[in-house]
Formats: sequence, structure tokens, C-alpha cells
Amino acid sequence: MSPEEISDLLRQVRRGKLSVEDAVDRLRRLPYEDLGYAKIDHHRTLRQGFPEVVFARGKDPAQVEGIVRGMLRNQHNILVTRGDRGLYELLQPLHPKVEFHALSGAITIRRQRKISGKGKVLVVCAGTSDIPVAEEALVTADIMGNRTESLYDVGVAGIHRLLGESHHLHEARVIICVAGMEGALPSVVAGMVGVPVIAVPSSVGYGASFRGLAALLGMLNSCSPNVCVVNIDNGFGAGYLASVMNRL
Amino acid sequence: MSPEEISDLLRQVRRGKLSVEDAVDRLRRLPYEDLGYAKIDHHRTLRQGFPEVVFARGKDPAQVEGIVRGMLRNQHNILVTRGDRGLYELLQPLHPKVEFHALSGAITIRRQRKISGKGKVLVVCAGTSDIPVAEEALVTADIMGNRTESLYDVGVAGIHRLLGESHHLHEARVIICVAGMEGALPSVVAGMVGVPVIAVPSSVGYGASFRGLAALLGMLNSCSPNVCVVNIDNGFGAGYLASVMNRL
Amino acid sequence: MSPEEISDLLRQVRRGKLSVEDAVDRLRRLPYEDLGYAKIDHHRTLRQGFPEVVFARGKDPAQVEGIVRGMLRNQHNILVTRGDRGLYELLQPLHPKVEFHALSGAITIRRQRKISGKGKVLVVCAGTSDIPVAEEALVTADIMGNRTESLYDVGVAGIHRLLGESHHLHEARVIICVAGMEGALPSVVAGMVGVPVIAVPSSVGYGASFRGLAALLGMLNSCSPNVCVVNIDNGFGAGYLASVMNRL
Amino acid sequence: MSPEEISDLLRQVRRGKLSVEDAVDRLRRLPYEDLGYAKIDHHRTLRQGFPEVVFARGKDPAQVEGIVRGMLRNQHNILVTRGDRGLYELLQPLHPKVEFHALSGAITIRRQRKISGKGKVLVVCAGTSDIPVAEEALVTADIMGNRTESLYDVGVAGIHRLLGESHHLHEARVIICVAGMEGALPSVVAGMVGVPVIAVPSSVGYGASFRGLAALLGMLNSCSPNVCVVNIDNGFGAGYLASVMNRL
Amino acid sequence: MSPEEISDLLRQVRRGKLSVEDAVDRLRRLPYEDLGYAKIDHHRTLRQGFPEVVFARGKDPAQVEGIVRGMLRNQHNILVTRGDRGLYELLQPLHPKVEFHALSGAITIRRQRKISGKGKVLVVCAGTSDIPVAEEALVTADIMGNRTESLYDVGVAGIHRLLGESHHLHEARVIICVAGMEGALPSVVAGMVGVPVIAVPSSVGYGASFRGLAALLGMLNSCSPNVCVVNIDNGFGAGYLASVMNRL
Amino acid sequence: MSPEEISDLLRQVRRGKLSVEDAVDRLRRLPYEDLGYAKIDHHRTLRQGFPEVVFARGKDPAQVEGIVRGMLRNQHNILVTRGDRGLYELLQPLHPKVEFHALSGAITIRRQRKISGKGKVLVVCAGTSDIPVAEEALVTADIMGNRTESLYDVGVAGIHRLLGESHHLHEARVIICVAGMEGALPSVVAGMVGVPVIAVPSSVGYGASFRGLAALLGMLNSCSPNVCVVNIDNGFGAGYLASVMNRL
Amino acid sequence: MSPEEISDLLRQVRRGKLSVEDAVDRLRRLPYEDLGYAKIDHHRTLRQGFPEVVFARGKDPAQVEGIVRGMLRNQHNILVTRGDRGLYELLQPLHPKVEFHALSGAITIRRQRKISGKGKVLVVCAGTSDIPVAEEALVTADIMGNRTESLYDVGVAGIHRLLGESHHLHEARVIICVAGMEGALPSVVAGMVGVPVIAVPSSVGYGASFRGLAALLGMLNSCSPNVCVVNIDNGFGAGYLASVMNRL
Amino acid sequence: MSPEEISDLLRQVRRGKLSVEDAVDRLRRLPYEDLGYAKIDHHRTLRQGFPEVVFARGKDPAQVEGIVRGMLRNQHNILVTRGDRGLYELLQPLHPKVEFHALSGAITIRRQRKISGKGKVLVVCAGTSDIPVAEEALVTADIMGNRTESLYDVGVAGIHRLLGESHHLHEARVIICVAGMEGALPSVVAGMVGVPVIAVPSSVGYGASFRGLAALLGMLNSCSPNVCVVNIDNGFGAGYLASVMNRL
Repeated sequence: MSPEEISDLLRQVRRGKLSVEDAVDRLRRLPYEDLGYAKIDHHRTLRQGFPEVVFARGKDPAQVEGIVRGMLRNQHNILVTRGDRGLYELLQPLHPKVEFHALSGAITIRRQRKISGKGKVLVVCAGTSDIPVAEEALVTADIMGNRTESLYDVGVAGIHRLLGESHHLHEARVIICVAGMEGALPSVVAGMVGVPVIAVPSSVGYGASFRGLAALLGMLNSCSPNVCVVNIDNGFGAGYLASVMNRL
Repeated sequence: MSPEEISDLLRQVRRGKLSVEDAVDRLRRLPYEDLGYAKIDHHRTLRQGFPEVVFARGKDPAQVEGIVRGMLRNQHNILVTRGDRGLYELLQPLHPKVEFHALSGAITIRRQRKISGKGKVLVVCAGTSDIPVAEEALVTADIMGNRTESLYDVGVAGIHRLLGESHHLHEARVIICVAGMEGALPSVVAGMVGVPVIAVPSSVGYGASFRGLAALLGMLNSCSPNVCVVNIDNGFGAGYLASVMNRL
Repeated sequence: MSPEEISDLLRQVRRGKLSVEDAVDRLRRLPYEDLGYAKIDHHRTLRQGFPEVVFARGKDPAQVEGIVRGMLRNQHNILVTRGDRGLYELLQPLHPKVEFHALSGAITIRRQRKISGKGKVLVVCAGTSDIPVAEEALVTADIMGNRTESLYDVGVAGIHRLLGESHHLHEARVIICVAGMEGALPSVVAGMVGVPVIAVPSSVGYGASFRGLAALLGMLNSCSPNVCVVNIDNGFGAGYLASVMNRL
Repeated sequence: MSPEEISDLLRQVRRGKLSVEDAVDRLRRLPYEDLGYAKIDHHRTLRQGFPEVVFARGKDPAQVEGIVRGMLRNQHNILVTRGDRGLYELLQPLHPKVEFHALSGAITIRRQRKISGKGKVLVVCAGTSDIPVAEEALVTADIMGNRTESLYDVGVAGIHRLLGESHHLHEARVIICVAGMEGALPSVVAGMVGVPVIAVPSSVGYGASFRGLAALLGMLNSCSPNVCVVNIDNGFGAGYLASVMNRL
Repeated sequence: MSPEEISDLLRQVRRGKLSVEDAVDRLRRLPYEDLGYAKIDHHRTLRQGFPEVVFARGKDPAQVEGIVRGMLRNQHNILVTRGDRGLYELLQPLHPKVEFHALSGAITIRRQRKISGKGKVLVVCAGTSDIPVAEEALVTADIMGNRTESLYDVGVAGIHRLLGESHHLHEARVIICVAGMEGALPSVVAGMVGVPVIAVPSSVGYGASFRGLAALLGMLNSCSPNVCVVNIDNGFGAGYLASVMNRL
Repeated sequence: MSPEEISDLLRQVRRGKLSVEDAVDRLRRLPYEDLGYAKIDHHRTLRQGFPEVVFARGKDPAQVEGIVRGMLRNQHNILVTRGDRGLYELLQPLHPKVEFHALSGAITIRRQRKISGKGKVLVVCAGTSDIPVAEEALVTADIMGNRTESLYDVGVAGIHRLLGESHHLHEARVIICVAGMEGALPSVVAGMVGVPVIAVPSSVGYGASFRGLAALLGMLNSCSPNVCVVNIDNGFGAGYLASVMNRL
Repeated sequence: MSPEEISDLLRQVRRGKLSVEDAVDRLRRLPYEDLGYAKIDHHRTLRQGFPEVVFARGKDPAQVEGIVRGMLRNQHNILVTRGDRGLYELLQPLHPKVEFHALSGAITIRRQRKISGKGKVLVVCAGTSDIPVAEEALVTADIMGNRTESLYDVGVAGIHRLLGESHHLHEARVIICVAGMEGALPSVVAGMVGVPVIAVPSSVGYGASFRGLAALLGMLNSCSPNVCVVNIDNGFGAGYLASVMNRL
Repeated sequence: MSPEEISDLLRQVRRGKLSVEDAVDRLRRLPYEDLGYAKIDHHRTLRQGFPEVVFARGKDPAQVEGIVRGMLRNQHNILVTRGDRGLYELLQPLHPKVEFHALSGAITIRRQRKISGKGKVLVVCAGTSDIPVAEEALVTADIMGNRTESLYDVGVAGIHRLLGESHHLHEARVIICVAGMEGALPSVVAGMVGVPVIAVPSSVGYGASFRGLAALLGMLNSCSPNVCVVNIDNGFGAGYLASVMNRL
């Protein structure tokens, strides 16, 4: 609650329009909705500018359905990440615009198409196997109101491919850069531009990649200081963060 | 064996009521029952106030059944953790009160309902995906004779949800706090109360959560000194420990 | 702030005894004192029953001195952990009761001697090298108002030493158990008693002890469910937690 | 080189104003200066908007001096990180504005005071021991042309301290959040605001903090999606990144 | 080849009974049999007193069959570890004495029953879930010519069960001790006896047991110096090593 | 692009045979082919002497097929690694020479049989279970134009097997050495020869082999300085590297 | 206490020669001596055949002196490990036979020279830098009554050095094998003999040796099954264990 | 010993020119020199083409001096790595050509200047702080008879610096590439050339570089297959390996 809301509430109490008991109650009650197994944070849109997002993995499909039903009561776009076709079929009857993004497993309900991001969000990835993570970032940035573009398979072992596409890098306001294995791409990309680069280590690789740890450590130690890092395979986080930056 | 029992035994020896050989034997024989593949510790109830618990994972169902049969010879409540529906169906014929707790996989035979805990045990969890672990803690605390309450999906990313439910925190005598991902919830909860908080890292998360390691390390480094930690996903241990504390 | 305090404040606003602006201010201002480099949490005693404790390592001695000066404005006992003789000499002029505990590096100012713990806190350690950690736990439990006892060098390689002292175990209401190397002592101790055992891994050892990691993992995997764990070498945390439990 | 520069160069070749050999040479030669042990990247200001920064640790003081002399040939602000008083005394004669920041070890030569950041950069830290890292971030953001503010010792164990200062959070365009131990602060802070939060794990802690690893993992697993992470103790990187974001 | 064999060979050369070329060849050819995908070490029985053993996991069943066929050409007992019923059925036609040990997956062909071990090998395990590893050790020690005994489910959380069976410990010449979770049992056992204790960490456990790592580290840091350690779940190695010691 | 090509291009511009716009375009466009999800690097053969290789795991079979179709437009040999029979059946119609190597999962299309390697590449492995990795190395070295030989199951526990085959070691120009478990073989082999030894840790083993980590660390710490290391199970990398060395 | 002692005690009770109270007391009191900071286990010689050993590191020199004084009350040999010259000078006045072993830091008081080991204990090490650990093993085996021999600098990179000394291997009853870096020596040595090989990883190495971890993992994964492992740098443990085996 | 030498020896035996006893002895004795604490491998030059090298760290200076004295008995160049000025002063009197390389700590005695490498060895490093490791590689390659060149401070954050020097890359026959932090340089370099690239992770960095682990993992996961890896900071190994390759 903002100071203004507190002031307003206090004024109502002074004027006798609100009982002390009700005021205590309202100060305690915050705008979330309790489903028992989940508390939907309707307040988040006010607080952060984006509605809550549902991470489907590890949740019962019926739980996800219940949460989505609750979220449909307001008018925001809805994003469910790490779903699958079965979940999509469960959610489809809820709204005419339910859409399944097979590459990343994301499910979206796009109810408004306002562009709130000021520039373009570019999603770059090092290899073909990184595309599922890159697509999760793309879908997220897209549904959160950004113009987006993608540039795939430009890993550093053939640096000319990246150099040959460098004009794309210069046109972006925020860059998301997905790479597995040694995770070197964000350092090279970030050295070529003056905008923030969000590095996403992917779990692509084998052996000493240790499911993305090698790429993660590489990115954390990037010698390019305009690189920041999110969790392994966290395409959603990168897309969200890019949206936050692109609104600045 | 208690000092009193030793004194008693020695007195019988002195009085000739017990041969030296039998006394040696009794000093050696302790009250457990040997099934070959398992030794049921009937003595535990005397020693610790709670009967032994069966951890089903990694055991042959027939072994679990044999152990439960052995335990049914006394009158205590019985708890089997990490079971499944198949095991439940195997155990059901053994006693009319066999009950399956689907969320956590626990199986209980509640033969007495005495409340031995002095206050309330509150189980808090950060997200919907943590519920299976939280429920294992809840079932354990419940069958061990405690009044319990739960508060789910109050993770720190929407701190107002926790603040809005803080009265629940203040009513508990012991708090169990389950969280995956960054495992930050116990620090915040513990900073708000003056009772012990048992932190349970859950394996919820992906990538750099390393199956609960991130949450575990976070909880071990909690800046709130009234936090103690148990193993990853160890809802049973948390429930048991809360029972021990709540009896104090 | 408690609901009662909020009600009271709101009543003053309704009665016009408090302006809306002042009420907004008081709802925002919480009882801590800002030194710039630190915010002393005077509120903690109300909230948790024990005042804040100063962790000296990594802080400038002048900063510690400033914080202690601030804390002396109330009447509580003061505990500074991980200090050294130099810091002690800096703090000594501040109060006649400043005391240095050489084994653990703790510095105390004991201004009241009220016993608030209901039973005895027993501190057990496995080897002579674990004593500094054990002593930190002991000093903490002591200044926080507990009767304490210690039992040192009873590691599991000579189990008869522990069995020979088991009556001490049975007299305690809470047990703190410090062990380095394989960290096996808490499992054995906890199996012998029915009270909570707070396990403290110590960094004693070499090679594959990895500075206490072996003991930490061992304790987290204890087969005795009445064991909970705190950070490596965290004698203070164990003592604090024991105090919280002993007040129950 | 931009496409415009290439076009221009090619036109000079067509007009015969530039020989083919010279053109080949210019296409190869890029604007850096070779000191043998280092190559000063004068081009970076054009490419990224900020001049190169000197990381002093692991470099010979004479090498740092040589690099700074080279950088003084242009007109930018100069930042040397992880220096010490000895290095400061070596560099002082080079320019009247050499300044030493004792808390963080940074050395600056501020030759222009233009503010290029559009909003305020707020640096938050969890505990007093995190201040050196926080100050490195602050000095960096400051010399790179941002208005800055700091908020220290607001760790999550006393959440009311953070809530009591939340208006500072709402005034910032970018937030840097430094925390050691469990590293929970960024999740809580990020949940309260709608701007990007750059999380910096600090190596503050002991035992299972593993020199900042616990905080790093915690931050990477943050349940608040507007959190991005930089390397442990990397105050400079956070300050640089905040500057890049604040220019957007 | 022993010095005596070399002397003998050289004498044959001097006497002209062996051509130089043949001698060169014999000095090069060593007594193993090359199957292409495997080289059967027939020499091992001479060198080490036990024939080679086949580790089935990761090998094609046909390869295992081929190796066993090769080994049947001499007269030794044959041991295949980590097999399954399918492999057993493939091997059964090869010899009338092929036997499958379902608990451990071992397959044996016992062609001679000579006891070469001088005392008894005792296999102890901490919990019911450790039995598969313990049985692999038992089968190995058995087929290698030792009298064996087992003592199961005597973990340290109920120390009286171990104390109650301590006479078994005192009758053994070599003890194998299998434990998962915290792996504390070998330290306690070894402290009670004067013979070598071979500790086998098992992967029994979950969460921070990290598939046996916790038990392994615990055993390596044992405070009882008569403990040595083999790989996680390496029942075979323990049984083999016990046989080597028991022949001393 | 080589300096010669740049000179040539510039000369065409000077002579008016190429417009400035086209030259800009050609300087940007580099010789790769963009499939959207992949960029085929046709330039690699010029740059490195070997065409690009397709790593099939983690790619959609249709993507692999698309890439192979693109690569068939030039005349080079084609290598797909980590495939399976299903992928083989998909690719078979594309060319009469598609071949499946079942042991390693490699798929090859050998369109030319030129030997470019100057000596022999020898692939050695420690145990039968290492053969799949060894075969991947062998297939790679073979299709890249080398004479190859293999020597399997010569692990260090029966050192006479290796010594008995040492003449093979002395005939090789480059040696690839695959070993799991303790990974000791490369050190011994490298100590016997004067040529480079490429060590490939395999994930063969269990328990504390940690999926090849033990072997990897062993090889990195080899006391034989003519050992270099590639990733765990990276038979392809070893074969490629051996080809590069054998061309020297 | 042995069953015989219990029988004896019980007989005294029956005959009235021992009061029940005293018997209870004696059953509790075990033969150790309590110094407060340490409990000297005089009983160990009876139980294990060797007296307790003092690990000096991490203990106060005065504590070590006190323990040694206590141990001098019986007639056994005394071994203090990880001491230094200062400690030696403190202990020297206590007994005429105090001896300092500079290479390993061991301090011995040899009061009897009985040989109880049946064969020879051979200590092998891979490199010159491993000698301190090897010497600790040698001193330990020596004072515990074994004939010993050493063989140094026979690492596997020059396998002919080991082969050239193999007769030493064949003469030993127990072999201790110390190696750092890749730790491959024990596998090779164990493959050449039929006796137990105790592998001691040393912390010799740098980089990816991770202070002995690489050698430790290598040894745990040894393909020679007559290898067992002790902690990194644990020369004492190896010497002790070899003594236990050599008495068999 | 080569087959020819064995044949020759056997012929001498047949002709009676060599007694059987002497032949046995010569077959056993191999050409190393035993100093007790070290065995100098004079045979290595024959076997590998380069004499043994002395790793000074962890050795007593007197031991190093003894080994160097032994090596001076033949005519090869001598290399001591990881020494310091004190060791240099000890060795200087032994030979007029003892030389100290301060940047890397190497000490050389160059007695012959024959160039045996066929091409140029290029040593590239990413940053100024990597120079000590790079210099160790350079000194090693140099004393082992190679023409060498260096290219420093061309890290990937300013890729134009590397591109601007790419002609140096194309002139080398073997490339050594040293990088700390994220270790991305070898991937980029290797993608630009067709020769082997030996990647050396350096321990340069802080925080999540974990003393070179991040760079090591990055290099092991390189997407450029002509990259092989040596241990962290192992400049010597890289230089040695480059020499072996350059002789091919």
C-alpha cells in the first residue's frame, strides 16, 4: 500500500467513515487471493507493472488450472511457463486465446497487445540446442509488451557468423544471450555493444558442462562488465528482466 | 537400560533369583526384535517418547510389511514415510486404520489421539510446489500428538502475503518453514518471531538450485539465529523435531 | 508493531490527538537506530526476547564500538562474537563489566543475571580441538539466561567415554553437540535421548573434511530425527537456538 | 568500425585518395594502444560509452601506472579498482584529481562531472560487513555519471528496517543490492519494486557460506524475476551495469 | 614374469634350446587372452591369488558371455558383479553351477570350495536399505574362500542394538561396514575392535547425502584410525580386500 | 576473409567493377548459410581444413536432417555424432553412403577417402566399457583422413597387458587414450612415448567417479607433461584434435 | 568391559563382596582419565592393542603436554603427530627418549621396541614432495612395532623406475602408497602384488588437484580391488592401519 | 629397452659374453639414478626426446640442488619451474649459464641452442594478469628448442584487439592460449585457425572463478574442437606439449 493510500485510509478513520476495526482489518488484508495451495498476488501488477506468472513444473495440473481461473478475473495477459501439451489442453477451454508455444512449453493468454517497451529486445543464442531456452525468453518478452527479434546459432567458434550479424546487435535496447557449453558468447556480444546483456546459461552440453554449471560460471566471470546473469535455463527470467529494463 | 533397571537386576542376582548367566544375557539382550533384515527398536518409545518410523524408499515392500507387522505388536501410532499407493494397498489389510496421505506419500496407522505437544506447530511453505514436503511435516507432527496449522505460498517475492498472515506466526510454539529455490523464507519468518524455526530446504527449483543445495546453503547461513536446518526435503525430520520441541 | 498498537494509534488519530501526517510517520518509523553503517534493532528484544548480537569479524573495531555504545543505551546484556583481545581492550572502557572469553573470542557485558531458561543446556563436543566452538555456544547460552553444563572429548571412536557420561545427557533439556571430522557424535547422542540435539559441525579436521563440510553433511543426514543443524563453527547460533528452545 | 566509416573508406579508395594497401591496413588496425603487457582500448568509449577500467589486483603497480598514463592521453574519467594506498601514492603525481576511496580500494581521476544517468541508482546492503563491496558499486556508478544513494544494514532478519526505508526503494531507477550469508535481500527488495535489481553476492559469512557461494546460489534462484546477478564481491560490475541501465 | 622364469628362459637361450626370436617373443607375450574388446588376465591368479572378476554394468551381455567363456578355460571360481536376471539366463547354459544372487545382482560359478581365509569376515550394515551392497561384499568374500557372517540394521541412532551384538564384532578377523546417510557406523565399530574395518559408503539417503558423498566424506574423516575406505556402493571391492587381508 | 580477398575486393571497387554498396554488403556477408535454427559454416573447411560436424543430441531430428541437406551441397565428408538408429533411418535416403556406427552412435557420409594425416592415430582404452567413447574417436579420426589403430582393455591394474603391447604405442604419431574410473592410463602411456597423448575421461564408473569427474581431474593432474585433456566422453573432440595434430 | 569382567563383577555382587551401588558405579565408570579438555583412553590398549595417539594440530601446546603427561603414567610408546619443533622442546623434559621427526612433524617416545608385526610394511611414494606424508606413515608403523622399508619417487610417468624396484613390492606384507596429483600409483602397484595396498592421497599438486581431491577420487575409483583409501595427507592413519593388518 | 636391445643382450648371453646373472640384472636395472629422495630419469631423453624437468614447489631447496647436480652430469638443457630468487642464488654457482626468469619463477640452464621445433609456437593471453603463466609456457617452449612469439591482453571483451592481430595466429604451428575468468579466449582463437590450441586456464579472477575452475570448465566445454586443455596455471605443461607437437 502506498503512503497516499495509508493517508487516505487514516483520513476516513478520522472522519468516522471507517471503523477502527475495519481499518485494522484493511491494513492487514492485502490484495491477494487465497486458494489454499496458492495465494494469487493480484497486487503485483500495481507493484511491479506485470502480473504474476505461473511456473507449471512441480505443480498439479488442477492447481495450475485453479490459479489461471483466478487470474482470469482481472484483465491482464497470462503466462504459464514449463507446461506441456496436456496442460495446454486442460487450459484451452478457459479462454479463446489460450496458445501453446511448443518449443519452450510456454502457454499464453494474450488479452491485450500494448507495447510498453521503448526499444527492441534481441534474443541471441549460441547453438541450435539452445533454442528452447531462447524461445521462452522471446515469448516472455513478447507477452510483456516488447518488440522482439532473434538471432540464433552464432556461437564463438565461428566468430564471423556473429560479426556478420552485428548490425542486429546495434539495433537492440536490451540483449538476451543464451549459451551452453563454455558460455562464452555473452562476453563477446557485450564487448561489441553499449547496452545491458542478460546472460542465460543453458544446460546444453555434456560431461564437464555439469548441466550448465560451466556456462554459468563462465558468465559470472565475464570480462565484459555490462553482462548480468540469471539462473541456468531461465529464459523466463531473462525475458522478464529485459521487459523491466526496456520500460526504463 | 536405566540405572534403576540395572540396580534391580543386580539385586535379583544378589538374592539368587537370577543366575549369573541369565544376568549376563539380559545385560546383553536389549529390547529390539530381530527380523534378520531389520531390528525393530521397541525400546525407542521408552528412550525417546516416540516409536520408530519406517522410511519406505529403498526397502522391499515385503520388508516394510514385515516391519509394520512387528510394530503392530505394541500399541503405538505407526508412521511409514515415502510410500506410495501400492504399498498402502499392501498394508491396508493389516489394520482398520491404515491411511494414505497422497500429497506426501505417508502412510499412517493412528491408534491413539493423545495430544502431547503443548502448543501449536505451524507449517509454512514458500510456494505451491513445496506442499508435498510441507505435508510430510504436517502428517508427522499430527500423528506425534500436536495441534497443527499450515500457511502455504507465502514466499518472499511478495512479502505482503507473509506480513498479511503474520498473526499465524505469532500463535505458533514451533514453526516449520519449507522453501526451495533461494530458501529465503525462514530468515524472514524467524526475524518476526521469538520461537524456534525449523528450516526445510526443498528440492524445488532448477538449474543452479542443484536439487535443493542452494536453499540448503541459504538456510545454513541464515542471519536469523533462531533458525535450525534439516536435510533437503526432510519433512519427516522437521515434523519429528517440532514434536520433540513442542513437548518441552 | 502489534495489532493493539495499530488500534491504539488509529484511536488517537480518530480523536484528533495525532495528526494524519504524524501517524503516517509513526507507521513508517520503526524502532531501530541508524548509525549510517549499521541500524541497531532495539525492537528485537520485544520481538524475540533477546537483544541483537554483534558479529565482530569483518567489521571495523570502531564500528563495533559504535554499535556497542548504541546498545548500552538500553539495559540488556550485550554479546560480541568472534572478537579478539584488541577489540576487548577497545570496549573495556565502555562499561565495568566487559569480559573477554579467550577460548572463543566472545566479549560479554552482563548487566543482568536472570535465568529465563527452564532446564539445563548441555554442550557436548567430540574432541579437544572443538572446544573453541563449544565455548562460544556455552557463553551465548549463559548470557542469554540458561543454566549450562559441558562434556568434552567424548567422540565416537571410544564410545565407552560417552556411555560413561550418559547421565549428563539425560539431565539436559536441550543438547548442543559440536563435532568436526566425520561429525558422527550428534547421531549417537540423539539416539540416546528424547530432547532436541543442535548439531554444530566444526571445521576441525584436514584433507577431505573440507573445512567442516564432511561433518556438516554427516549431521544433515543423521539417522536420528531429533537432530537439527546450524552452520559450520556456528557456536553462537547453537547457543542462541538452545536458549530459544529452553524458554519454551 | 561502423558501416558509415567503411563506406567512407571505400569511397576514398574508389577516388584514389587511399591506396589499396593503406585501406587493408586501416581495416585491420583498430584503435587500441599496445603497451606490450596491455592493450589500451581507446575505442571502448565510442563502442560502449564508458572508457576501460583498470582492475589492479594481480597487476604489477608499474603496469597499472603505465596503463593509467596511457589513458590520461584522452579526456575521460579514470577508475582503478581493487587498489590500495601504495598504488594510490604511485598514481597521485600523475594528475591533480587522483582520489583514493579507502573503504573499497578504488582510485578515481574524475575529469568531468557530466550526469548521463536518467534516474537515481540506489545501493542497498544487508549488513555492515558488506559495505566495502557496496562502496565499490557506489564509486563506480558515481564516476560513470549517475546520481546515487545508499541504504545500509537492512538485512531480512529485521524486515521492519527495510520496510521502514521502502520509500528509498521506490525512488530509484536501478537498485544494486549487496548481501552475503544467505543472500536473501535481493528477493525481498525486488518483490517490492518494479525496476531492475542487480544482486551482488558478497563473500561475507563463514562455514557453509563457502566465500559467497551460498549467497550467489540464493540470488541465482531468486523467486523475484526482476533480479539479475553478477560475480561475488563484484561491486564494480554492478555499478557499471547500473550505469548502462540508467542511461537507457 | 618372475626373476626365476627369466633366468630359466635365458638358460634355455644359452643352451640353444630356444631361439633368440622366440625368446624375444615370449618376453613380450604375457599371459593374457585377447578377445579384441577385452583382454582376459589369466596371469592374475598367479600374481594376486584370485582370478579376474567381471564388472557387468556398461558391458554388452554378449561381451560378458564371451569373457566368461574365456575364463571357464581355467579352473577358478568365477564372479560377475552388477548383473541382472537377464544376464544370468544368458550365462546359465555355460556351466551347471551358475548361480544368481538376486539381492546384489552378483552371478557366481563356484567350482571349488577351498577356504583360504584364516578367520571370519563379518559384514555389518547400518540399515535395511544397505543390504544390497552388504550382500555383494558377502558373496565376494564367500566365493573367494572365506567364512563369513552378517549383522544388519545396527545403525548408530539406536546404539544399544550394536552394543547388544558386540560379541560378533570381537569374533571377526576383518570387518566390512556398510552405511549410507551420515556413514557414522564404521567409526563406532572400529573404536570397539582391534582389527581392520573396511568402510563402504552406500548411496542410501536423499537430499544432502548427494548419492553417498556424505557417507564417503564421513568415513574418510573417521576418528578411528583402523578404518579404511572404498568407493561408494563398492561391496565387491570391500569383499575382495577383506579376502586379501584374511589370507595374511 | 583473407587479406588477399579483401585486397581483391578493394581493387574491384577502385576499378568500378563493384559498387560501394555491394562491397559493404560483401564485407558483411560471410560464407555461412542461414537455416533460421542453424547457420551452416561452409567457410570452416577453408579456415580449418575440416567441415563442420553436427552434434545430434538435443537437436530435433528434422533440424539435423535440414543441416545435413545443407552440408550435402558441398563435397566434403559429413559426420553426425551422438545419433541413434532412428536418426540414421531419417538420413539414409539423403545419400547412398550414409553409414551408422552402432557402438558410438556416429553417422557418417564418406564421399572422399583422401588420407591427409601423416602418421598413425592410435586409440587406446582402459576397459571394455570405454569402447563407445573410443569408437567415436576412431570414427572421427578415420573420416577426417587418418590411418587409425585401436588397442582396448589395457588398464593399469594389469600393467603387463600394456607393456606387452607397447610396440603399438611406439608406432603412433598421435595417441588418444580413453579411461574412466581413476583415469590413470594416459599418465602411464604418455610416460612411455614421446608423442602427444590426448586424454579422454570417460563417464565409466560409479559412486565417487561422479560421472567421469574423477578421471577428468586425474588426467588434468597427470605427471606426464605430454598429456592434454578434452571433455568427459568427448571422443569426437579427441579424434578431431588428433587429426589436426596428425596433419602438422 | 568383556563378558568375563561382567561375570566376575556379578559374582562379587552375589558373594556380597561388592555393594550394589559400587557395582552400578563400576559398570558406569570406564577406564579413561578426565583432564577436562580431554579424556585419555587408557582402555584403548586393551581394546585395540595400541595406545591412543595425540593429534597436535588445533590443540594448545599446554593441552598436548597435559595429555602426554597422563599417557606417561602407563608404559606404552607415545606418538604425537603434526607437531613442530616448539612442541618438541616443550615435551623434551618429560622423558629422556622424546624424539622429533622433522620431515613429518611427528614426536615419539619409544619406551619399548617389541616387533609385533609379522611381515614388512613398505611405504612407497610417487614424488619427492610426497615424502612428508610418507614419513608420517613410516614413523607410525615403526613405533607400532613393524619392520619397515621405503621406496620413494617412483611415480607412473616413468614406469620403469617402479618396475625396476618391483622386488621390493613383492617382499612386503602390507604396502602404503602415497601419491598426489593424479594419484595413479596405487592402482599400478596394487596390480603387481597380492597384498593389501593402503592408498594415501597427498595434497601435492596445484590447480585442479584441489588440494588432494583429484588424487583422492582417483584412488577411490581404483580399478585394482586390493586398494583401500584413507584421508588426504593421512600418513598416520595409513601407518596405523598397516600395523593392524600386519598383526593379523 | 627396445626389442633390438633385448635381442642384442640375448645374443651376448648365447655367445657366453654375458653371464645369466648379469643379464637378469641388466634387464632389471633401468637407467635412472637414485638420490634416495628422488630418482633422476636419465632415460627420459631417449624415451621422450626431452630431459626431465624439476618442479621446485614443495621440494626442499637442497633437494632441488641435488637433483640439478645429478642432471648436470649429462649435456641437456635444464629447466626448474616454480622457483624463486632464493633458489636461483643457490643454483647459480653450479653452472655459468643459470638464468632466472622473474615473471614466471622459472630457472634455466641452457647448454645447447638447437631448434628442433618445425614451426612457431605462439603464446596468447587474455589479460595482463595472465602473463606469469604465459611466460612459464614461453620459457619452456623456448628452452625445448622452439621459435616462439607472444601476444598479450587480447581478451574477448574487446574482440577487435584479437581480430587486429589475427595474422599472428595464422603464422603459428601451435598456439598456447592462457585465460582466467570465463576462459573464453581459446574458443574464439581456435575457431579462427586450423592448428591445435592448447588452452591453459589461469587462476586469475575472484569470487565465482573459484581459483581457475570457471576457466577450466569453460575450456573443457569449448565448442571449438581443436582445443585441448591442461591444468590450471600449468604454463610448463602447455609449453612442453607445444614442443612435442611442434616436433611432429
